Amino acid sequence: MRTVQNTNELIDCGLGKITSDLVLKNIKLVNVYSKEIYESKIHIKNRRIVSTDPDANFTAKEEIDCKGLYALPGFIDGHMHYSSSMINPEAMAQVIVPKGTTTVCADFMEIANVIGSDAIDIMLEGANKLPYRIAIEVPTRVPTAPALETTGKVINVEETKKLLKCPETVSLGEVAPSKILQRTDDNIEKICSAINMGKVVNGHAVGCDIRDLSVYASAGVSDDHEAVEWEEALNRLRLGMHVMIREGSGARNLQMFVKNALEFGYGFENTSFCTDDKHINDIENEGHINHNVNLAIRLGLDPITAISMATINAAKYLRVEHDYGSISPGRFADIILCDSIEKIEPQIVYFEGKRVFEKDKMEVKRIDRKYPEWIQDTVHFKRPISPDLFKVKALNKSFVKVNIAKLVKDQIINKHITASLLVKDGLVMRDFYKDIMKFAICERHGKNGNVGVYFVQGFTLKKGALAYSMTHNHQNICVIGANDKDMFLAVNKVKDMKGGLVTVIDGEVIASMPLVIGGLISDEMDAKVIRDQLIEMNKSAKETGCTLAAPFMTLSFIGHPAIPELAPTDIGLVGVDKQEFIPLVEV
Amino acid sequence: MRTVQNTNELIDCGLGKITSDLVLKNIKLVNVYSKEIYESKIHIKNRRIVSTDPDANFTAKEEIDCKGLYALPGFIDGHMHYSSSMINPEAMAQVIVPKGTTTVCADFMEIANVIGSDAIDIMLEGANKLPYRIAIEVPTRVPTAPALETTGKVINVEETKKLLKCPETVSLGEVAPSKILQRTDDNIEKICSAINMGKVVNGHAVGCDIRDLSVYASAGVSDDHEAVEWEEALNRLRLGMHVMIREGSGARNLQMFVKNALEFGYGFENTSFCTDDKHINDIENEGHINHNVNLAIRLGLDPITAISMATINAAKYLRVEHDYGSISPGRFADIILCDSIEKIEPQIVYFEGKRVFEKDKMEVKRIDRKYPEWIQDTVHFKRPISPDLFKVKALNKSFVKVNIAKLVKDQIINKHITASLLVKDGLVMRDFYKDIMKFAICERHGKNGNVGVYFVQGFTLKKGALAYSMTHNHQNICVIGANDKDMFLAVNKVKDMKGGLVTVIDGEVIASMPLVIGGLISDEMDAKVIRDQLIEMNKSAKETGCTLAAPFMTLSFIGHPAIPELAPTDIGLVGVDKQEFIPLVEV
Repeated sequence: MRTVQNTNELIDCGLGKITSDLVLKNIKLVNVYSKEIYESKIHIKNRRIVSTDPDANFTAKEEIDCKGLYALPGFIDGHMHYSSSMINPEAMAQVIVPKGTTTVCADFMEIANVIGSDAIDIMLEGANKLPYRIAIEVPTRVPTAPALETTGKVINVEETKKLLKCPETVSLGEVAPSKILQRTDDNIEKICSAINMGKVVNGHAVGCDIRDLSVYASAGVSDDHEAVEWEEALNRLRLGMHVMIREGSGARNLQMFVKNALEFGYGFENTSFCTDDKHINDIENEGHINHNVNLAIRLGLDPITAISMATINAAKYLRVEHDYGSISPGRFADIILCDSIEKIEPQIVYFEGKRVFEKDKMEVKRIDRKYPEWIQDTVHFKRPISPDLFKVKALNKSFVKVNIAKLVKDQIINKHITASLLVKDGLVMRDFYKDIMKFAICERHGKNGNVGVYFVQGFTLKKGALAYSMTHNHQNICVIGANDKDMFLAVNKVKDMKGGLVTVIDGEVIASMPLVIGGLISDEMDAKVIRDQLIEMNKSAKETGCTLAAPFMTLSFIGHPAIPELAPTDIGLVGVDKQEFIPLVEV
Repeated sequence: MRTVQNTNELIDCGLGKITSDLVLKNIKLVNVYSKEIYESKIHIKNRRIVSTDPDANFTAKEEIDCKGLYALPGFIDGHMHYSSSMINPEAMAQVIVPKGTTTVCADFMEIANVIGSDAIDIMLEGANKLPYRIAIEVPTRVPTAPALETTGKVINVEETKKLLKCPETVSLGEVAPSKILQRTDDNIEKICSAINMGKVVNGHAVGCDIRDLSVYASAGVSDDHEAVEWEEALNRLRLGMHVMIREGSGARNLQMFVKNALEFGYGFENTSFCTDDKHINDIENEGHINHNVNLAIRLGLDPITAISMATINAAKYLRVEHDYGSISPGRFADIILCDSIEKIEPQIVYFEGKRVFEKDKMEVKRIDRKYPEWIQDTVHFKRPISPDLFKVKALNKSFVKVNIAKLVKDQIINKHITASLLVKDGLVMRDFYKDIMKFAICERHGKNGNVGVYFVQGFTLKKGALAYSMTHNHQNICVIGANDKDMFLAVNKVKDMKGGLVTVIDGEVIASMPLVIGGLISDEMDAKVIRDQLIEMNKSAKETGCTLAAPFMTLSFIGHPAIPELAPTDIGLVGVDKQEFIPLVEV
């Protein structure tokens, strides 16, 4: 928020009546408004930029000679989920700030699904100490699919309006197409409120055709990050939707977009970057939003355009350009210093005028935050889980026709297929030859003890079981297994840890990683520890024979009632298109 | 404002459950997002666009075959003043809608200076009947220069906050540099409130150098329409300010900007168009915002970029792109149909889904509005005006050195010069040889009866007097005259008419035009009548020998305390730079 006092100090400083706090001299300024690079200097006062004039001659308390480094605005991740990285905002700082990200737009719907709208307040409570900024997308998918899934809590219209009023809020978070296509007044009222309060509305138009996209846009949804094919991206652009180009751990859409846009001559004015879901090790290895920028440049995009997408384009679209997204007077001093704009690896990062990273290490003390006890105890079963609950009974036939989710390589969507499965002793069997394994969702909010058991093809599991206390977006425990007993063990281990990841092989827990904050996020404050745990978990998953790149992330998306085509939930098997249950076994 | 009911109807229509109201078939859609032109059709429901999909196959109540015409979004005038055109919003429709303008961003500061913040409510009262949209810029220059001018009313911080909350409000209106450079908490609080409420802040940085511009931007001012030289425009772009390129009756900055930007390779993403001050006859003869577009194209700009500047660029900057600025689902159906995009002359104009203009005539009935009596009676003298009041006394010398405003051809600024004037019988004389005439400002809010008398060079008057009840921004009566008696007659005639324009020659009123709404705007509802009156007034001004293109507009800017370099007000002679009085006669 702007205050009279701070504004007056900026004015007095700009007029030379009082000194600035800091001047960064001898920089090459990357100007994302005029699309130029020129030699200049940056004066900073009270966290904000007060002058970028090369000829400004007022004095500063501190001078730094930047020796000809480029100065870029800090990067903006237009849309992300902490739960996907399993990392708390404090530890996240250690991972993304060194990559130059100074703002993330976060949808906390996962933890909100577990503990309600308080989740946002709790996650933000420590935010003013962070060396980067969290902009809030108010979650709309709490729940995603009422009556088709059991969630812990609901965020209603009144709570939504309250959250929309927060100064940190930039948008109404990704609205599922079903909420619009099967319109319910509650959801439409949330959208109208957001628009009338001057906020944008994020989309989540997975697999929508032009007709549904048009309806979506007409209802007021103004962006989307789910375009996988060029035609989908172009449809969005033509309908006046801002396209957030996603490059995460799983979904990688950048090359598709940039190559096609360059080839066919489309501009990048209405585009920006996001990660959506990205694991720590991927961020460490390849980068965060700087990876999106660097990859786009490698694909032939000119650096200033790519940098603009990571900064001012997002800031304009989100209506925050007065506060960040450029190196201009009045904006917060979020600045990356680096020696190349062909491949951006930050040497120094400033956040709100403070040097927060320099030469491979954070310049601010690690923040250790103790989260409230009650949000670290959210995994509860209404009734005990036994191995018997994972049996799938069938009539006394030899074979049954079963509706199955077939995973699509490197995507979070799946295909709805049917397969004929053997029935033995009245129970439907897995098919190891066809790679069809059992998959279950166990309700974990202590509400009804639901256990839904299904079949999934393409997970490449050969033995054991993997379990995780996160399923988009109801956050029930998902488990895949080559035998029922290992599934039973894995699920109970997850519960005993109060949430997390588990790998079981032949009756033994061979690896586990606790995620106690809402059963979704680690309470570990050292990002490296979380990264090593996750690497260990992925290694353990390989021992089950699984060859997927990110097995637990893939696992967590299978039961997502808004991701096509089939979504097995704790209640039943959801046909995503029509948002209706379909039978597991065809009669 | 978005409502659940309207949004639901858009959704149902888009899903084909209910018919659309209208489909425009066989159009060439100018898509300002994807920067393409392609064949398509537009379905409209409830004033908004519901689909632009060429393959949409739902039915419409009414079908129109547009026979291959181009369909463009309605044009936006990013900043204008009704008082400059002397025309009320109702009559304005007849002039601008045929030119394709469907939205004007209006600063009503002139009438607010006369009657206070109620002015905005009163001007907007009939707005929902208009065939175009008025977006409000909340006036900040009420007054422009407290203590340096006498105004009728003041708009304080609380009133400003209330106006900022109006759904029609898009911005805090043009903030004078002096309000920031000589910061007063009231003005800074207005700016902070606007920003914190999500509104943009319009600038008015006449003649500011880079240092002052930087201060201006750091305080939160985010656009400007006063760049006259290319260096000024480039400074604004580099500082992250949106540049509104003005092409009005007096100030014409478009050619400067477009030629230079094209020559030096700057983009147009952060630019849009405005008229600021434009007379009816100029609008009729050359066009309104379509003139800006057409001129830019003539100068070599590609048509889609020029059209984007007149539509989506303004809408994005003003944070209204969800409502207008493009032909996209969910936006109001403001559509221009025309047969060329090289030279845009609208054949048909739709406003909010209604055909409002077709083939040289308005398709909606003329709106006749009766404005409240009390705002038609705002010209009051505290004491009678006599010819004696126009005398300038001096000590018993032969000559005195006088500070004089020297007009600059085709600009609203003036230069501060000094000249030696003859003193006769203790009175300072005009200098007909040097074209130095007497100029006076008569306070007309009934407050103090001030009459300030000064000298102005360059008005080219040879005889008679011209008077006008508008002076930016205090709205006192300005008068220029070759003799005191004609000045006296002209001013009194203005008062007797309750405001307006008057030409007097040799003791006779040879032409007059009443402007009774606030003493600024005509109550005539037929635009042609106003135009003819104004043509008549300009003709009559020529009979005084005056060769200026727009003598009354020029007259009204001389006493503007924010336009460099000298501003004679009812109180004294203001040095605009320092915002201090300087003596008329040097001692």
